[in-house]
Amino acid sequence: MSTPPDPPNPALTDAVAAEVARQLAPFQAAFTKQLDEVRERTVGHQCAIIIFSGDLDKVLAGFVLATGAAAAGLEVSMFFTFWGLSVLKKPGAAGGRKNLKESMFSMMTQSSSLGLGTSQMNFFGIGSAMMRSMMKEKNIASLEELMALAREMGVKMMACTMSMDVMGVAKEELLDGLEYGGVAAYMADASQSRVTLFI
Amino acid sequence: MSTPPDPPNPALTDAVAAEVARQLAPFQAAFTKQLDEVRERTVGHQCAIIIFSGDLDKVLAGFVLATGAAAAGLEVSMFFTFWGLSVLKKPGAAGGRKNLKESMFSMMTQSSSLGLGTSQMNFFGIGSAMMRSMMKEKNIASLEELMALAREMGVKMMACTMSMDVMGVAKEELLDGLEYGGVAAYMADASQSRVTLFI
Amino acid sequence: MSTPPDPPNPALTDAVAAEVARQLAPFQAAFTKQLDEVRERTVGHQCAIIIFSGDLDKVLAGFVLATGAAAAGLEVSMFFTFWGLSVLKKPGAAGGRKNLKESMFSMMTQSSSLGLGTSQMNFFGIGSAMMRSMMKEKNIASLEELMALAREMGVKMMACTMSMDVMGVAKEELLDGLEYGGVAAYMADASQSRVTLFI
Repeated sequence: MSTPPDPPNPALTDAVAAEVARQLAPFQAAFTKQLDEVRERTVGHQCAIIIFSGDLDKVLAGFVLATGAAAAGLEVSMFFTFWGLSVLKKPGAAGGRKNLKESMFSMMTQSSSLGLGTSQMNFFGIGSAMMRSMMKEKNIASLEELMALAREMGVKMMACTMSMDVMGVAKEELLDGLEYGGVAAYMADASQSRVTLFI
Repeated sequence: MSTPPDPPNPALTDAVAAEVARQLAPFQAAFTKQLDEVRERTVGHQCAIIIFSGDLDKVLAGFVLATGAAAAGLEVSMFFTFWGLSVLKKPGAAGGRKNLKESMFSMMTQSSSLGLGTSQMNFFGIGSAMMRSMMKEKNIASLEELMALAREMGVKMMACTMSMDVMGVAKEELLDGLEYGGVAAYMADASQSRVTLFI
Repeated sequence: MSTPPDPPNPALTDAVAAEVARQLAPFQAAFTKQLDEVRERTVGHQCAIIIFSGDLDKVLAGFVLATGAAAAGLEVSMFFTFWGLSVLKKPGAAGGRKNLKESMFSMMTQSSSLGLGTSQMNFFGIGSAMMRSMMKEKNIASLEELMALAREMGVKMMACTMSMDVMGVAKEELLDGLEYGGVAAYMADASQSRVTLFI
């Protein structure tokens, strides 16, 4: 890449420059095309977590992973569906009018994150109370603290609209600041994510 | 990158061609090599879902995700293993001869997708019946409709041959049009997938 | 890439060489930069599996997948958290001093991989015994054999330090040759993995 001595004459210089540009153009186009094809097969620095379960232990694991991913610099989205919807319920929200089946679902699912049981050794809430108490003793963040932390770290929380529909859950029953979407919204995030988990 | 008017003279054109070829060659080789290395680290527009669970709610979620992924343009493969094998059973298939343990497994697992329970609030099938009924009221596709839709959309369904072996399930007991394979077949798909889920 | 006949005149040759070098430099720089950006969006030939469950059937599936991934040439790391920690317990290890709650957790979780139940049809261990017996008859590796195989294949096994803390599990209670880490260690592996599973 040495620079030449004085160019011999300006007309020739221009002609050479133009000709080099003309001949480089197809290479540039070919490289760009190949690079685009490879880029198409890459993923972003994103993490997409489905919270399907309503068990306290699993939901906790979900939030530990979500905040851990955010701390690692990933853009995180959590998608709450089926039993996982309970996590997003406002404590004490009355909810809209429900038909009989919706009311039964509502009675049997938890009224907010404060009522979640554990997936094993639940024993009518003893497992859950014990886990909460042990986490407190060990200075590990509670679910509610982890949820607040996740929000601060910019973790996107999306409520599954199909589940809301099936279970008769209205937006007013859910926490503020959520996003809403179906499987298409999840897939848009997941297909650009390097970490995809179903919890 | 404008193309010049007619190249000024053939000697110049030839000289530029030779020099571009000479100087570009090592870069082109290096670029191609690096691009190949990067391509090696990419993934396809694929989605690989393991259905391990035999719970109606989880299996439904699996099919909603599979059809959603297919609708988003991904190539989807579902791998049915352990309890998830039940989903693929033909309703009313008698099955081959089983030994005592195989028969017990068979009795305790579901005879087809129509017999699956939910992972929570099952209460001897009430949860499952209620979920099916609510989905019908809300015009959400049933499991059997989702399975048919998945097939139409080209979702690959593979039965885990190791699970078939352990549980004593014969091919004749399973639906038609399935693929069969073990963990190697799953890994071949999963390692090219941008979305990998264990349900 | 044909070489030209004799170059017409040295002045032209020099001018062309200089011009090609001048135009190639930014071209090369731009592609190198773009290639680096694309490389940033790729993943390694790695597989990261979280074992959250302590159910025999799920843990077995985890090890079948881990060894299958290793056989397929992936670098595999397994991260054992919550109930999954039980898998890593030494049979008959006494453990350190535990407070009352830790002792209760310890009593209710399994003392080693030999005590794990199945996620469905457990019936006080019958499901688990039956599965183990059927796997033996079919010459399928037992959990302990799969764990040994996984180690031989270089599968990394990491115990979740936060779970150890919450559940009061000491390093002395766990198998030898493990790695220890929290969610940050998991994320470091997972964000470079093409297959990420939560079991």
